[in-house]
Parts: sequence; C-alpha cells; structure tokens
Amino acid sequence: MASAYRRKRKHDDSLIHVDLNGVMQDMIGGEAGVSVAELEAIQPRLVDAVGHLADERKQGLRPFLDLPYEKAALEETLALADELRRDLDWFVMLAIGGSALGARAIATALAPGGGHGGPGHVGLIVADNIDPQRFVALLDGLDLRRTIFNVISKSGETAETMAQFLIVRERLLRELGAVDYAKHLLVTTEAESGSLRQIVNDEGFSSTNFPASVGGRFSVLSSVHLLPAALLDVDVTALLAGAQAMDERCKSSDLGRNPAAMLAAAHYLLDTLHGISIAVMMPYSDLLSTFAEWWCELWAESLGKRLERDGSVVAIGQTPVRAVGATDQHSQIQLYVDGPADKVVSFLRVADHGARVEVPRSYPDIGDVAYLGGLPLGELLNAEQRATELALQKHGRPTITIELPAVTPFALGQLFYLMEVTTILAAELYGVDPYNQPGIEEGKRLTFGLAGKPGFEEQKSEVEAWLQRKKPALVL
Amino acid sequence: MASAYRRKRKHDDSLIHVDLNGVMQDMIGGEAGVSVAELEAIQPRLVDAVGHLADERKQGLRPFLDLPYEKAALEETLALADELRRDLDWFVMLAIGGSALGARAIATALAPGGGHGGPGHVGLIVADNIDPQRFVALLDGLDLRRTIFNVISKSGETAETMAQFLIVRERLLRELGAVDYAKHLLVTTEAESGSLRQIVNDEGFSSTNFPASVGGRFSVLSSVHLLPAALLDVDVTALLAGAQAMDERCKSSDLGRNPAAMLAAAHYLLDTLHGISIAVMMPYSDLLSTFAEWWCELWAESLGKRLERDGSVVAIGQTPVRAVGATDQHSQIQLYVDGPADKVVSFLRVADHGARVEVPRSYPDIGDVAYLGGLPLGELLNAEQRATELALQKHGRPTITIELPAVTPFALGQLFYLMEVTTILAAELYGVDPYNQPGIEEGKRLTFGLAGKPGFEEQKSEVEAWLQRKKPALVL
Repeated sequence: MASAYRRKRKHDDSLIHVDLNGVMQDMIGGEAGVSVAELEAIQPRLVDAVGHLADERKQGLRPFLDLPYEKAALEETLALADELRRDLDWFVMLAIGGSALGARAIATALAPGGGHGGPGHVGLIVADNIDPQRFVALLDGLDLRRTIFNVISKSGETAETMAQFLIVRERLLRELGAVDYAKHLLVTTEAESGSLRQIVNDEGFSSTNFPASVGGRFSVLSSVHLLPAALLDVDVTALLAGAQAMDERCKSSDLGRNPAAMLAAAHYLLDTLHGISIAVMMPYSDLLSTFAEWWCELWAESLGKRLERDGSVVAIGQTPVRAVGATDQHSQIQLYVDGPADKVVSFLRVADHGARVEVPRSYPDIGDVAYLGGLPLGELLNAEQRATELALQKHGRPTITIELPAVTPFALGQLFYLMEVTTILAAELYGVDPYNQPGIEEGKRLTFGLAGKPGFEEQKSEVEAWLQRKKPALVL
Repeated sequence: MASAYRRKRKHDDSLIHVDLNGVMQDMIGGEAGVSVAELEAIQPRLVDAVGHLADERKQGLRPFLDLPYEKAALEETLALADELRRDLDWFVMLAIGGSALGARAIATALAPGGGHGGPGHVGLIVADNIDPQRFVALLDGLDLRRTIFNVISKSGETAETMAQFLIVRERLLRELGAVDYAKHLLVTTEAESGSLRQIVNDEGFSSTNFPASVGGRFSVLSSVHLLPAALLDVDVTALLAGAQAMDERCKSSDLGRNPAAMLAAAHYLLDTLHGISIAVMMPYSDLLSTFAEWWCELWAESLGKRLERDGSVVAIGQTPVRAVGATDQHSQIQLYVDGPADKVVSFLRVADHGARVEVPRSYPDIGDVAYLGGLPLGELLNAEQRATELALQKHGRPTITIELPAVTPFALGQLFYLMEVTTILAAELYGVDPYNQPGIEEGKRLTFGLAGKPGFEEQKSEVEAWLQRKKPALVL
C-alpha cells in the first residue's frame, strides 16, 4: 500500500502542472479576470474541440500528434546519430523558423553545454539568419573537415536556407575538394518533391525526409529536431515519453483533467472577453528561454489569422512576447504592472533547478545582503517568480503558472506537446486554421521580385513605384 | 566647391535616418495610419516638449544627455581599460537590467567576436540572471586568475547582483586566496552611499562610480558600459561622437529636422488615436538584435506607467517587442500581417552589412535557386526587409524604417541617443515620468518577504495567505 502510494507520488511528481488560479476574476478582481460562468459557458465548445481533434487524428489528418509513438523512426534517427557522431565536432543546421526553433529549444534546455563542439562531444549551431557578417564569421571559425551541415527546408524553396546552402556547398567544394565535400552535407527535405530533393537526387547527397504532412512549427518531435538532440546526447526517448504522458491527459473530455483544453479556454476567454491581446511567456529559467521563442512562433503563426465573418474581416490572434525571469523584472515588469491591462503573463516555474549553490553568509551585519546568506540561488529565483506573480495579480493582471518538477527531457516533452494541443484547441475556439500561413505569401512574392526571380517582374515594379511614393520630407 | 560638397555628402552618409512614410494614412490607408492633420495638431506640444527638455538640461537635471561630452570621464575609462587589459581573458559583468543591456548591445553590434576571451583579446560575459545551473557552469568554465568580475549595482541592493557577488567573492577567496582574490573584483556603485559602497570601503576593493543622477536604463553612454566596450576594442570615442551628432539634430525646434520629436509623435499618435498598443523593433541584422532588447527596456520602463487623471486611473504604455529579420518572417510576420492591427513595426535597415558574400550560381537550371545566384547575401536580407515593409503597409499596418549606413560605432551612438530622446519626448506627450519605476516596488517587497529579509514578515504572510487561496481544482 505504502509503496503503491510512493509509486503514484513519484509518477505525479514528474508531471508538469498548469495553475490557472491567476486568470480568475475572484482571484485578481478587476475587469481582466475570467468568471466561473464564462468558463462554464465555454465547456460544450471545448468538449467539441477535443472530440473533433480526436476524430481528425483517427482519420490520419494530424500525424504530428502521433510523432511521439513512432518507434521505427526514432531508432533510425538514433542509428543515424551514432553514425554521424564519429569524427564530428560541429553539427550546423541551416534552417529557419520552425525547422530551427525546436532544436534550439531542446539544446538550450537539455544540453546547455552544446554550444561547444570538440573531440568527444558534438556542438550544435543553428544558423537561422542570413546576416552576412555573422554567417561569414561562422564559416571562418569552423574546421570544415569536422563539421556536417544539415540543410533543412521542407519545400526546398526557402530563400534564406537555399542561399546558405549554396554558399556552404561552394565553400566545402573549394576547401575539401570534389571527392570529400559531399560527406559534409546532409539534406532534410520532402521525400518526393521540391527543388532540394531534385538536387539531392542529382548530386547524391545524404538526406533524410522531412516528415510528410507535418508543418515546420509542429515538427519539434520529429527526426528534424530529434537528430540534433540525439547528437547532443539528449535522452530523446524520455522526451517522447513526456509527450506521450501529456497526450494521455490532453485527450480527456473531462475538462478538469485536461490541461490543454483549460489553457486554451483561458487564453481565448481572456482575449475575446477581457481585452487581453498579449500573451507573455516568462520562464524563470535560462534553460527555457529558447522554449519561449519556439512557443512564440507556434502561437503567432497558428492563431494570427484573418477571418471573413458575416461579410466583414476580423483579425484574430494574441501577440506572443518572450520575457525571462528574473532578468526582465528589471526591464518589462514596470510596464506589465502599471501599463495597460492587456496581457496575461505565463510563468514557467522550475521546482528543482539542478545545480545547488548557496549564497554565502559573508556580511551578516549589512542588511541589504545579510538576508541572502544561506539562501540557495534557485530558491531566490523562485521567490522572485512568486513575488512577481502575486504583484501582477494584486494589480488585476492575469497570470498563468506552469510548474515543472525540473528541466528534464520528460518535462520538456510534456511542455512541447501541451503547447501544441493548446494551440490547436484555441484555433478551434477562434475558428481559424492553425496549419496555414497565408499572410507571408505577399512578402515572399515581393522578395522574389526584388531578387529578380523570373515571373515576379510585376512585384519588382510594384516595389519601385511604392518607393517613389515615399515623401522625402518624411525621411528625417 | 566640389570638395566641400563631397565633404558634406560624406558627413551625411554617416548619419542615420528615420523614414516615417509608413505611419501615414495616405500611404497605408485604413484606420491605423496617422493623418497630416493629426501630425500638425501635435506640433505645438512637441515644440514645447523639446523646449522643456532643453530647459531641464540647462538646469543640470538631465546629466545623462551630456554623457557624450564628458571628456575627462572618457579618458579615465580608457586609461582604466588599458590597465585592466593586462593579463585579462574574461571580463564578467554581474549586472541586471539597464546596467547589463547597454554593454550587451554594444558588444553584439560592434565586437561580435567578443564572446571569446583569450590571450591578446578580452572576452565579455554579461551574467544578467541567477539561474543556478547556468551561473555555476559559467564559473566552472573560467580561469579565475585571468578573469575580472565587475559587480554593478547603482543602489547596492539589487538582490540578484548581490547574490552573484557573494557567491563569486567566496569562490575567488577559496581558489585564489586572501591575498590575491580582491584583484579580481571591480565594483561599480554610487559614490557616496549604499551597502555596496560600504563593502568597497571596508574591503578595499577597486571601484568606479555609477554616475550620479543617471538611471540604469539611461546609462549606456556612461563609463558603466564604455569600460567593457573599450576592453573589447570598440571605438568608444566614435560612439560618443555619434551621440553628439544626434544630439545636435534632436535639439531642433524645427520639427521637420528633428528625428526624435517626429518619432515620438508618430508612436504617441499611433497609440492614442489608432489603437497601436504594440511597438515591434525589428532589426534586419543579427548585430542589432541586442540593441532591440536594450530598447525594449527603455520603452517599457520609461513609458509603462499608471496615471491618475480627473480622479480615475489611466494605464499608459506601448508594449515593446523584439523581432529579428529575416528570421522572424518565419515566426511572427503571419501575425503581424493578418492579425490585429495593433502594432507598428520599426525596421532597422543596414545599407552596408560589411562582409560581402555572394550566393554562387551553382544550379542555373533550377528555378527555386537560380535567381539567388550572384546576389550578395546582404542584398537578399535588405530585399526581404523592403518586401516585408511593403507587405505590412499594403495590409494597413504602420511601419517605421530607421536606416543605418552601416553598423559602426558612430551609427550606434546616434541610435542610442535618438531612442533616449525619443522616449523622453514621448513621455512628455503622454504626461508620464520616464525616470521612475514605482511598479516594481511591490514585487521587490514580496521577494524580500519570501527571502526572509527582516522587516518584511508581513509580506511573507501575505504570500502564504494568497497561496492558500489558490483552488487545487484549478491546478491541472
């Protein structure tokens, strides 16, 4: 009996928990809080959304939700990692957006030493921009003979990644010669189509498949990100087990036990009924700072949409903002407390920060430091989180607190999965499609025009005409 | 004549310019744009604000605006840098908020290699958080004999910085011994008062003065940040010269020539008349990514205020958001284009990115890559900026474009100064005090309570009572 209890406790202790007290009107008062009645009224729609997602999944429409269960793919990825690891100092991802952020989030959280490659341990670099100075410095600083470049573009037409690829390919060819250079390229793209696949076939580069029907921002639990994670010795099996554990919880139509459903409802009600148009993700942990960036993409691209409703256009979507505690207490909290009541702050609170370091009792007679003596640094960090949570609530600002037992693969897997399902359920409440991104097409076409891509001459003319319309007097 | 013209051109070419076309109604249409009438109506208040600031400055009330002219302080800083540089691999700043962000912004922009310390070149690390795992890893990775820790706290009571200081002090004492350890500490705090000054006096540590009457977020052009900049071989004289050049322009009551005044007016009108409550700073340059973070603090803490007006409370302040181009086109632009019309995007556009690298013409027959052949990477980046600017404007979303000839000390000095004056003038329009931060006091007191500081027992009880009020059913 006692041991079963302990086992249950142990299991519970490894789960993450979502504390929604701070969104409720009776807790924070004022106009920003959600009422019990509002929460009850939304429940039928929530139950429908959970059921709808389950149906779509049964029909095979949401393969990214089944990624945690793909054992064969996982074993393939682990085997590839073992093979690549030999003679490898640096694994450089040429990728942008969702293809870059997942791996970056995993590495920051679970392999914080992963920024240093060298004999015996692989370093990961995610080159997710085309700033020429930074990109050239990156290439200059690497021993190319001990580096693999992983070119990742689902469609094979991502301008930034393709430009990086062409530059890297030429450099490898020049420095390592025509026989060896190809060994340092690994291409990840669609299996059947696209220009990058064509190049792989023509040149005989090594390649892996970007999983079919999985969009970039929902790809974090796929081989695209698990491969670099495995190279950094992250326990990817535990990461996937965490996702599975969260999957079990997020399937529940008993909403009081479904953290994704309740989290989606909280955001939706805060936004649509209480003017909370900004969602801040504020980990009190450096290790989770990049996770917050991953989430910012997921939330912005999935929910930031334009809807036609009853003949008029409605613009949807909370603006996600990343903050990091305690640092941003000295940068953003003044605004969050005293500024407009237009944001909900979601804290990520870590119970056990791992390293234990105590503040020494060096100056017992100096009041501004004496109280710190004997305090573990992690406790100080967590005290600041609690203090900030309460300070915001006292000012009528809603908060959410997601509690992690520790920054482990199992916890991070839960967190990724929780946020993916939350986003999809929120999309269902808003009535938007979380999987498309029509708003970026115009910018792409205009870039093609300016870059001189054939077929986009009209866009080039359009930009030139627009630049002519600018009034010099308004350029100061 | 010709040479005078060239000289003038050369001078002009080194100035940064603010393009406000994208905020005007006749350019972007819709409801978000500012009308010419609105801009005209605000002019008298703007002229007053510029005059008021000049008056305050004459009275000696705004010393941070005169920092660019402090020759003696500059020479002292340069001499100290020369002295410290000997036998120094790593300069570690223990600082948070404005005391950290200025140096970080300068280092990212002007010393992008500054993350690597070693014989012959100093590396800078800014430790601006108390995550135990990261802080311990930092200390473990340093050769303490070749490291100086710069402890920076204006008041001497910043909990995070003081905790770091005590941990570092003990570690130095333990590893280097009582004779040598103090040489590795340099304290920056107020000249006359505070606990840290008392400790300096008692222990005989080296110290510099945090300049009097200069707040953390307005300190970037002071020795606090110029010392680490000088250690990284940044041309700080040129940085200050840039600030001086901008100062000349921002003093003008001819508003058509005053970029700070017009920029402040644009933000204020967009926010108060057009619902633009979010201000995105989006450099198309990795080098300026940390500058955007510095600006986020400046904008949030200075303007995010609570006002009592006619007996009711008004909450003021745009929420600043950092994005980086082109990367965040694949993360945030979907939301910015199709989501709510509640943001203005300020681009930082760099004419010359320094390193020149051309995309090779490797696959002339493959349409998705052929057009990239021959294109310099910096031109692709700038084409994406223009395309995004136009795409946003076509959707009725206001934009501002700040153009830098290059990321140089002279340009960055202008940019810092421009943003400081813009912020102060905007504060005057909003009617708020840009220099205080009353909203963070409550959180500080609650942290003191939780950390057991004597005198804050009531706060501790308050937190405990509040935690009791949380409903377990809302923790999922």
